[in-house]
Amino acid sequence: MPGNAFGELFRVATFGESHGPALGAVVEGCPPGLSLDAADIQRDLDRRRPGQSRYTTQRREADEVEILSGVFEGETTGTPIGLLIRNTDQRSKDYSEIKDKFRPGHADYTYWKKYGRRDYRGGGRASARETAMRVAAGAIARKFLSDRLGVTVRACLEAMGEVRLERRDWSAVHDNAFFSPDPERVPELEAALNAVRKEGDSIGAQIYVEALGLPAGLGEPVFDRLEADWARALMGINAVKGVAVGDGFDVVSQRGSVHGDEMDATGFLSNHAGGVLGGISTGQPLTARVAIKPTSSIQVPRRSLDVHGNEVEVVTKGRHDPCVGIRAVPIVEAMTTLTLMDHFLRDRAQNGERGDG
Amino acid sequence: MPGNAFGELFRVATFGESHGPALGAVVEGCPPGLSLDAADIQRDLDRRRPGQSRYTTQRREADEVEILSGVFEGETTGTPIGLLIRNTDQRSKDYSEIKDKFRPGHADYTYWKKYGRRDYRGGGRASARETAMRVAAGAIARKFLSDRLGVTVRACLEAMGEVRLERRDWSAVHDNAFFSPDPERVPELEAALNAVRKEGDSIGAQIYVEALGLPAGLGEPVFDRLEADWARALMGINAVKGVAVGDGFDVVSQRGSVHGDEMDATGFLSNHAGGVLGGISTGQPLTARVAIKPTSSIQVPRRSLDVHGNEVEVVTKGRHDPCVGIRAVPIVEAMTTLTLMDHFLRDRAQNGERGDG
Amino acid sequence: MPGNAFGELFRVATFGESHGPALGAVVEGCPPGLSLDAADIQRDLDRRRPGQSRYTTQRREADEVEILSGVFEGETTGTPIGLLIRNTDQRSKDYSEIKDKFRPGHADYTYWKKYGRRDYRGGGRASARETAMRVAAGAIARKFLSDRLGVTVRACLEAMGEVRLERRDWSAVHDNAFFSPDPERVPELEAALNAVRKEGDSIGAQIYVEALGLPAGLGEPVFDRLEADWARALMGINAVKGVAVGDGFDVVSQRGSVHGDEMDATGFLSNHAGGVLGGISTGQPLTARVAIKPTSSIQVPRRSLDVHGNEVEVVTKGRHDPCVGIRAVPIVEAMTTLTLMDHFLRDRAQNGERGDG
Amino acid sequence: MPGNAFGELFRVATFGESHGPALGAVVEGCPPGLSLDAADIQRDLDRRRPGQSRYTTQRREADEVEILSGVFEGETTGTPIGLLIRNTDQRSKDYSEIKDKFRPGHADYTYWKKYGRRDYRGGGRASARETAMRVAAGAIARKFLSDRLGVTVRACLEAMGEVRLERRDWSAVHDNAFFSPDPERVPELEAALNAVRKEGDSIGAQIYVEALGLPAGLGEPVFDRLEADWARALMGINAVKGVAVGDGFDVVSQRGSVHGDEMDATGFLSNHAGGVLGGISTGQPLTARVAIKPTSSIQVPRRSLDVHGNEVEVVTKGRHDPCVGIRAVPIVEAMTTLTLMDHFLRDRAQNGERGDG
Repeated sequence: MPGNAFGELFRVATFGESHGPALGAVVEGCPPGLSLDAADIQRDLDRRRPGQSRYTTQRREADEVEILSGVFEGETTGTPIGLLIRNTDQRSKDYSEIKDKFRPGHADYTYWKKYGRRDYRGGGRASARETAMRVAAGAIARKFLSDRLGVTVRACLEAMGEVRLERRDWSAVHDNAFFSPDPERVPELEAALNAVRKEGDSIGAQIYVEALGLPAGLGEPVFDRLEADWARALMGINAVKGVAVGDGFDVVSQRGSVHGDEMDATGFLSNHAGGVLGGISTGQPLTARVAIKPTSSIQVPRRSLDVHGNEVEVVTKGRHDPCVGIRAVPIVEAMTTLTLMDHFLRDRAQNGERGDG
Repeated sequence: MPGNAFGELFRVATFGESHGPALGAVVEGCPPGLSLDAADIQRDLDRRRPGQSRYTTQRREADEVEILSGVFEGETTGTPIGLLIRNTDQRSKDYSEIKDKFRPGHADYTYWKKYGRRDYRGGGRASARETAMRVAAGAIARKFLSDRLGVTVRACLEAMGEVRLERRDWSAVHDNAFFSPDPERVPELEAALNAVRKEGDSIGAQIYVEALGLPAGLGEPVFDRLEADWARALMGINAVKGVAVGDGFDVVSQRGSVHGDEMDATGFLSNHAGGVLGGISTGQPLTARVAIKPTSSIQVPRRSLDVHGNEVEVVTKGRHDPCVGIRAVPIVEAMTTLTLMDHFLRDRAQNGERGDG
Repeated sequence: MPGNAFGELFRVATFGESHGPALGAVVEGCPPGLSLDAADIQRDLDRRRPGQSRYTTQRREADEVEILSGVFEGETTGTPIGLLIRNTDQRSKDYSEIKDKFRPGHADYTYWKKYGRRDYRGGGRASARETAMRVAAGAIARKFLSDRLGVTVRACLEAMGEVRLERRDWSAVHDNAFFSPDPERVPELEAALNAVRKEGDSIGAQIYVEALGLPAGLGEPVFDRLEADWARALMGINAVKGVAVGDGFDVVSQRGSVHGDEMDATGFLSNHAGGVLGGISTGQPLTARVAIKPTSSIQVPRRSLDVHGNEVEVVTKGRHDPCVGIRAVPIVEAMTTLTLMDHFLRDRAQNGERGDG
Repeated sequence: MPGNAFGELFRVATFGESHGPALGAVVEGCPPGLSLDAADIQRDLDRRRPGQSRYTTQRREADEVEILSGVFEGETTGTPIGLLIRNTDQRSKDYSEIKDKFRPGHADYTYWKKYGRRDYRGGGRASARETAMRVAAGAIARKFLSDRLGVTVRACLEAMGEVRLERRDWSAVHDNAFFSPDPERVPELEAALNAVRKEGDSIGAQIYVEALGLPAGLGEPVFDRLEADWARALMGINAVKGVAVGDGFDVVSQRGSVHGDEMDATGFLSNHAGGVLGGISTGQPLTARVAIKPTSSIQVPRRSLDVHGNEVEVVTKGRHDPCVGIRAVPIVEAMTTLTLMDHFLRDRAQNGERGDG
């Protein structure tokens, strides 16, 4: 399949370029009878939307989502849910400057090599704008998992450049522009980001995500392990370069006597595994981290080529997020949610009788 | 789909439990006309086989693969290739000791929760033995990619516990039991592993993998990015807890002016991206690392439950690899190869005309 | 997968209910560089549109399609093509009459049993209106197959009730409201249809379809035979009850010495097979027929139940096509085209090298 | 996907050529806890086996199936079930006669065009022998559907050449070599077949199939309608040229007032629909018919080409079934069963909660 759809049974197919007429998605497989309206989706979209603070790009989009199908009298019907967001801020600005240039760190060069052409306006399909539809679809899955199973998925910033956040106050995450779980260190994050921006540069970030309330038994062994599909979902987010589940890369120097989670009558005594063993959820919190590279659009001049093979210098004008990682927080939540939703349905298909017993 | 198949167009479906009659696979989508015989596959299988050194499990299996279909007069025909390996060393040993116990770090508990039962003999389907078929299928893909495209995929140990290997002498990798690219540090690895074993404990590892000679243009944007599918492939290997592409988690503290790979008329000037931008290969080497947890079967007593909910103590008897990570090297190669093969075919489907132009 | 998408590599996911805000589709996998604009799609849509003659339903929809993505500077880019048609004629008419009743021959009862609810306005997702998006997506595939491979797909009415059309003048098909290839018998069709309508009843039809110019070699043997996937595509059209390839049901009483198509140096000497052997195209014209049941909405009173289990009488008011089969002609073409397009890409993935030789 | 697998959630991937070492299959997605042993499968295989009467090919194969995985202590475990049948009667006979010739009506020519080569021994992958694995996999699905849902799938011969069987005595079907439901007309079938054979010719057949006890609600609307997937399954059987559901092609001349099945408090009053409306099962018996072309291997000389483009004459020596349609009966049952099993799981995934309410 061509790559713009996610999930086997809760399946999201997206379309849309950054500066085309619209973004959209078809969400298939949502069980019938879920109470749903546009506001349920808008809430998550608003958290992802740029232009909300001085730390993110100043493009201002209403990002107003319209439900085109699949919901009737306030409930899902079991038929596909069509979602649409019109692009409203795609100014007819002059792209002649970068039209033929491959911007370092961007997908300009690779789209060109693959397709022999590209929509150069704002990154086209490779733009982070594309993720709006993932968040919209994720909001539907989130509602199902929350209403029916009591599952909570939540993410926060864990590091930005050299700043590592250790405190985890979930109530603070949505009260600051950094999705920081440590409200006291927000000034430190601000200072660091301002310093980077002053230099016209950018910086990477690390996001932590967890899912609570998940039943044991989700995940298909061997190739479609829960953590494998989750890793694919997370590594499929723009700019992500690393994914770690549970103790992640720390396991390299761990002893088995430390790593293996023991159990007693009260349940698991630790969670080094990150909630998954042999590809199947244990019922403990699922935990993961993703590493997000620094924004590729920077004001520092960079060497590159144009489509004709000429050497050129590329400098990105205009204002860009100096740390795209911050805005990735809701997207990490969405992709996690979509992964769990799909595996919930997949498990139910094969093991539906378990629940009946 | 139920999870035991990998790939969209070069599709490998595997079956078999550790102590059942056999392991097998169906490999679909191999282009016709590839010269292939069992020896081509056996070569890779032999590198994965346990019982070859004192550092790996002493189970001795011939692991002799039989090609059951899809090859005629020495060449692939385009029809599915059936592969079979009989299990020969599944002694009828007494499993009553662990039959009802959930071994910490193993999939015993999760299979039980998912399926309400499990084949407890040697881990059943969750055994590392299952990976033999991945290596067998990978050998077919490797031959195609090598013969037709000149692609090389290779992996090596990069760290084991506290020992980090920096030198990378590829010619040495297959001359030592650790797949170490630094032959001089093999004694150090031996000493470290012996110490761990003496304590009845185990240790984690890190594997480095790269693919050379890949054309630009492979990978499907958005959800099926090359690195996303690769991450899924790697995270789907038993015991893997982390996957990092290119600079991986180092990007968290990198500046954009460092990370973004520049180009001049000679091509790319660095490879922080690890050979992939926007989900599509750049033509530079693909690079990744995986973190592998310490072996779960250890002789240190651990607390756990049995299937009746009773608290029990688990001690693994018999000899086990104190570092499963070592044996993962050929599997990491196989899963990388299968990912690339699949994406080669997927790209050819949509962009076949590019090559004709 | 949940059933609202068609194709493996040229993949069309559709959404939308008859009386919801819009219909839409995502078309993935279209090769880049195909010249395309909305008019290319509109042409086929206009042929499917109701309200064009007194023999079809009088709902009047502009059915104006908008391309939302995937096309840039007049050519496809390789990214998904989003398509949208706003519903403009979904009058807020009173559905209280049929809201709770299961109309015989309709999907009312089965949607209710499956989903526990349904959008009763105009048939919701089960409405023939849904097929507009198949035609729109088919138009893109048609353009590719025509421009790049010289393939022509065309269909016509072959029977309506007792009227069987034997002459096949393709130039006449689009000049009459019946898609009749025999223009001289149009008055006879008119008379027959008027008679049926006068009785408030409806009648079935048979459509003939063929594809010319197809290369040999398309189709995947065993389960995904070209004719198998084609049969699925055709049987998936509303109201279709039978599909026959080549000589179809006539083979039951044929001799092998009649059926098997002979060849000499000039090629095949007959085409009883209908252009496909062993699931793979022979290079001869592909030929098939479909049987379409009479319109279920009729003015003859019928016994049925309501959602509460009460016995009710159902009479459909308003004007409906007395023969839905007529309007199926462009949809049969579209589904045939989508099948061929998908198999062209699938073949190219595995056998791309054949073309290079 | 490359075409040798069937089903989304109950997924069967098959391999094996007529004269290769073995046939095999991987059956994924079978729910755990189903009681299963090789005898359950062997029973259905024995009904398909050739060499049982003088009316079928004289190849004698034990067709002994081995379960290689996925069953433990007499029950399915939820992991893939590997199945194997060794070919034992593939005599090293001389194929030089037909090695380079394209036999009319066979897939020789199309495999050659698609793959540039073919396993010419006994038809290779295109042989009817391949269907053994469909029957084996179907037997597992049959057991599940029967044990858990009380579903019965059964097929019989309905016509052979000019002989049309109208009586339907199911108890007689397995007591005669023709799967005839009218035991009194077996002598007539024998006479007809002997006449055909005497001429060295062959004849077509029609099979009727039905599924009883199916719940309402199975089937995914739009593209994956139950009848669409079923049509694909049936049209994917070797030699099938037509598929008709319910009243099939009779609907062409039916009135809507006849076709639409009415209901009263006792349920449906007729079953013209064949148990499916809008792609979803009604709970009535599912009914279909398939048309099967005459055997292509005949002793009547036929004109054809060889791989070098030379004109040749082809005469099939040896004994072949003069009517392959007869042996298709168990395969039609198997493909029907596999379709239903898959849709049962697909429905359960999305609508699992329905059952819980």
